[in-house]
Parts: sequence; structure tokens; C-alpha cells
Amino acid sequence: MRIDSRHYRTIWENADGSVEAIDQTSLPHRFETKRLASLDDAVAAIATMVVRGAPLIGVTGAYGLALAAAADPGDEAIEEAHSRLAAARPTAVNLRWALDRMRRLLLSAAPSDRRALAFAEAAAIADDDALCCESIGDHGAALICAAAAEHPGRPVNILTHCNAGWLAAVDWGTALAPIYKAARDGIDLHVWVDETRPRNQGASLTAFELSGEGIPHTVIADNTGGHLMQHGLVDLCIVGSDRTTRIGDVCNKIGTYLKALAAHDNGVPFYVALPSSTIDWAMRDGVAEIPIEQRDASEVTHISGLADNGAVTRVRVTPKGSPAANYAFDVTPARLVGALISERGVCAASEAGLRGLFPDLA
Amino acid sequence: MRIDSRHYRTIWENADGSVEAIDQTSLPHRFETKRLASLDDAVAAIATMVVRGAPLIGVTGAYGLALAAAADPGDEAIEEAHSRLAAARPTAVNLRWALDRMRRLLLSAAPSDRRALAFAEAAAIADDDALCCESIGDHGAALICAAAAEHPGRPVNILTHCNAGWLAAVDWGTALAPIYKAARDGIDLHVWVDETRPRNQGASLTAFELSGEGIPHTVIADNTGGHLMQHGLVDLCIVGSDRTTRIGDVCNKIGTYLKALAAHDNGVPFYVALPSSTIDWAMRDGVAEIPIEQRDASEVTHISGLADNGAVTRVRVTPKGSPAANYAFDVTPARLVGALISERGVCAASEAGLRGLFPDLA
Repeated sequence: MRIDSRHYRTIWENADGSVEAIDQTSLPHRFETKRLASLDDAVAAIATMVVRGAPLIGVTGAYGLALAAAADPGDEAIEEAHSRLAAARPTAVNLRWALDRMRRLLLSAAPSDRRALAFAEAAAIADDDALCCESIGDHGAALICAAAAEHPGRPVNILTHCNAGWLAAVDWGTALAPIYKAARDGIDLHVWVDETRPRNQGASLTAFELSGEGIPHTVIADNTGGHLMQHGLVDLCIVGSDRTTRIGDVCNKIGTYLKALAAHDNGVPFYVALPSSTIDWAMRDGVAEIPIEQRDASEVTHISGLADNGAVTRVRVTPKGSPAANYAFDVTPARLVGALISERGVCAASEAGLRGLFPDLA
Repeated sequence: MRIDSRHYRTIWENADGSVEAIDQTSLPHRFETKRLASLDDAVAAIATMVVRGAPLIGVTGAYGLALAAAADPGDEAIEEAHSRLAAARPTAVNLRWALDRMRRLLLSAAPSDRRALAFAEAAAIADDDALCCESIGDHGAALICAAAAEHPGRPVNILTHCNAGWLAAVDWGTALAPIYKAARDGIDLHVWVDETRPRNQGASLTAFELSGEGIPHTVIADNTGGHLMQHGLVDLCIVGSDRTTRIGDVCNKIGTYLKALAAHDNGVPFYVALPSSTIDWAMRDGVAEIPIEQRDASEVTHISGLADNGAVTRVRVTPKGSPAANYAFDVTPARLVGALISERGVCAASEAGLRGLFPDLA
């Protein structure tokens, strides 16, 4: 998608055999890219959230295995790289999916072929992801068009949480892809952007993305969505998913569940956009079964932003000595989800719904 | 209550006829007080949130009228001071209540008596508030003791939103008073502190208060409460109220409604602590009738905190050019409120409940 009118993907190969990724820790205040020349670089990029978002983490993991295979194509090195990359973000189910796909392919090939095969496969995963997201966009845009038809003469108001845009993927994104497609189809729309504490991916990344595409939007504190819904200021919600169980429970950024409750209480459709690679067919009850990553408390006690002097500065918002907890995700039960938007179409958030679209996977 | 083992109230009279208030914009990083020597100082202290919280705003308004009467005890000056103070925070119903009480008294007295009368009445309002909050504390502590009895052998986990502690009042506070009382009664408890974006009153003021009283607590992003409740990590919620309608709808800091939804969805008792002065008997349907204050967008786009160099620094978290909206309050419908805790006791969040406790006011 566009940044300053130029088209980018989030990750690409350099001519020298290294990989380049947009450094998302510098956004929205500075646009910088990071060169990943080794397995260590890829592990660090995932762990420190230079790259983030389920699909992009998967692609970065794939390129990480390719960089590992370039350095040492032996079975042991590939197994070790697989383990290290998988451990970099334990909640991300399609990191695991991409790594398993890469490992299977590489271990079945002759070591001398593995480097070339690995880069080709990582590129294929990236291209597949872009196509997959574009399909999610097409299917979801139809829901936005329908909402626009119900409210002629004013913009469709859409609320989103966190960043499930193209910066979380390779291109297009998941939750934002329908918005980009609907906007390109000429639908008049406006997006409420949850800032998404503690890491502020909404205030920083989603707002940055929407600005790049010229889409009207307003950043709000995470506390605000319920009030907006009570007053008819939200026509629909679209969020992404880090993991979806076979019955349609959705694990996504912490706070998603609260917005789903408000949507349910106010009759606002709550949609979840996801590539099928994030479906965990082995799980049913998301609240009981999905382990929730806890991140460093400093992400709650401190906030980074641009100071008046132009420097990105970290400030502490809590009193010295007050502890903080940082749960990164929560689970929204399927009963609160209006529909799932996948690359194969829209379905109910239920086992029957998912089986109907994915009989080959279920 | 205590700061560094010394007892304070939030506002007091100086020997020179001026008034002194804890400057809450400097907390939690610096403890400073502000001298209010004139009506202008009092209006500014309310508007810029040097003082905040429904009861404290009322007391500060009363002292503002006293400072105005000291400068000019004439009817016209008192009427003008009343208007300017009331306009400084339009949503605060007991600012209006305190100002009306002061005006009634002053206009019925001879101008030469008004200065002394005004200071005495403002002090009486402050003392009444401290007593009222202490009663709220006693009544609410009984609910916490009951929860402790249900879960022996571990701390009672209480979630609170924003700051409805003693810094929002004169002493004790509203939502935190039951916690202080229960703690002094020896109940083992732990408080989950919502940071409360956009102004972070939880992360800064509530955490600061609880530290001063030595009460175990953990600061969390506002997005976190739903997850904690799904996992049995919250035994009860207590929040304050800026305005309560006669049927028990509660207008409180933005985001309160979302926590009430989560509490309802998980069977967690959701209590609202309030002095009867915040009940607006003229209103019924809070969502439809209560005007919601919108504050400056910069409170969303920028965050203040302590930088590593020790300076309180404001940083921007959004991209340049992304607009923001800042709704300060929301309304929690009475159906989501388990009980109201007032200075006269605990009642159902309903017209019958409130009438039962306040037959003289209803």
C-alpha cells in the first residue's frame, strides 16, 4: 500500500541475499527499514516487534529460515532455527504454520538446493499472503457496501482495534483490507481508530496507514468505543485475529473482547477478518485453552512518542514503585462475533460456518 | 489520607485568607501544591484540572465563591462568580450543587457578613464531604469483607477505573474509600488499577494514592479488565460517578461502561460509590439525557510522563495530521450496576433503591 504516494510491501528481498523490512518500532514518527542478514536478525526482528502482526510474523519467520539455510543448510541448523523462530512470539499460530511449511519442504530436499528453495518458498508465502489479504478485502468490502446502502448520504463509520492493516501483513492487511477495497470502490467511510494501549499500534500504525491511503479517520482512547456505539456513531466493527478456534472464538489484541461486548449490547455488527492460516483447528474453547502472552510491564508503565524537540522519547506514566501487568491478548467468544471474513468468503463464527468454507482443513 | 506517611487533605485554607490545593497535574512525579488567591485562580484550577473529581471540584467551587466574596461581596459579583465557576466544568453536577448552596446562603446575608460566612460554609462543605466519604467507605467495606469471606486464603481482587479516591474528594474518596476502610480492617486485598486513558488518572493518581496507603495494586491498560474477569482474577469492581440519574444510570469516566459490560458478562459484581450530591433527580435515561463533555484532542494525541532525564515531558503518540476525538465520560445503564454505595448505605441501582435511601430528596 502507499506511504507518501509510493507503493511498499512490509518485507522484501535485497539483491545481496539479505531481507529488508519496514521498522515498525520507528513508526509513525520516522519511516525506516531494517536489514535482516541472519537468523539472529530475524529472531530479533520478531521478538522486538520490528515486524508484528500475525501474517507478517509468519513471512518473517519463513525468511528467517531461509537466512538460516543460507548460512548452514544442514538438518540440525534448520531444526534449531525453527525452534528459535517459533519461540520468538509463542502466541502467533501462523508463525508456527509458516515455519512448519518451510521445514517440511527443506528437510525433503538435498542440502545443496535448500538455500534457493527456501528463498523461493518464503517469497511464495509472501505472495500468497498478499493475494489472501486482497481476497479478504474483496469479501469484507461487500459488508461495508451493504452498510453504506443502509445509511445513504453519510459516511459509514467503522471501528477498528489495534493494527490489522497491511503493516501487519505483506500488503492490504486483514481488518483494514475491506476498508481499503471499499474506499477504492468509492464508498464514503470514516474509521474510528482505537489507540490500543499498551503499545499504541492503533494510534501509531493504523492511523499512519489510513493517512497514507487518504482515508478519513479519528483516533480515540480505547475507552471510547462503547460510548460511540450507544450513540449510533459506529455502523460496524472490523478487527483482526491472532488465533481463531474451530468454533469461532477469536484471540486478538487485548481489549477486543470489550469492544465485542459493546457491539453486542448495541446491535452493532462485529466482524473479524482473518486468513485461514490463523485458524487453530485443534482448539475449541478459546478462553479456556489459548495461552495468553504476558509482555514486559514497562510497556504499561512507559510510553514512547515524539517530544517537542523532535526526539522519540520514552516517558513513565506510573509512580515509581507501582507494579504493572501486561496481558497482550484476550479472547472474544464466538457468540459475540457477527461473522468471520476469510479469503474464501464470509461465514458465521461457528464450527459449522468454518467447516462450510474450509471442508478441506476442518 | 497519607503521602509519605503524612496526613493530607486535598484542599485547605491558608492563614493569609488564600486557599491551598494539591496540584494534581504534577502527580505522581512531583508533589506540589497550588495557592488559590482569587476567583480567577479557582476557575483556572477547576478548568485545567489542578483539582479534579466531582466532590473536590464542588469544594473548590465553594472556595472560589468565598474568594470572590472576599474581593467583592456584592450580589452582581457573586452571580458572576457563580456563572464562571459553573462553566469551568459543565458536566460536574455537584459543582453546581455546591455553588447553588453557597449563592443561596450569601445572597440571604448582609454583604458585610458574606466573606466570613462564605469561608465558613466552604469549610463546612469540605468537612461534610470528608464525613460523607468516610460513610461510603464504611458501607462499601462491608461488601469487600463479604467477598473476602467467600474467598478465604487469598487476597480479594478489586478492579477500579479512573481516580475516585481521596484526591478526587477532600479525604477518603468515593470508590477507594471502601478499599481504605477494608484494608484498615485487616482485609487482604489487591487492586487492579485501570490506567484510564486519555488522562491516565488511574496510572498516575490511583496508583499514587494506593502506594501512599501501602495497598498492593497493579496498573493495567484499560483494555485488560475483560480478560482478567474471564479468568476469575477480579472479585468485584468499584468505580465512582460524576452524575447518577434517578433510575440509577451512572455517568462516569469514559470506559466505565465497557468494564460494566465485562463484569455483567462474567458475573462479577459491579459497584458504584457516590455521594448523594451527585444524584441528578431531574434525569432518568442517562444515555439519552446526559450531555457528554468533549475535551481537547491533544489529551489523546499527546501523553505526559517522566522522561529519563527527570523532566515531565509531553510526547505525541499519533502521526502528525491524524485527528483525534476526546469524549470524557460515558453512561453505564443501571441494568449493569450491581449496587450503589452511598453515604446512607447500599441500594439497588434503581428508582426504588434510591428512593428507599433518600426519601427526603427523591
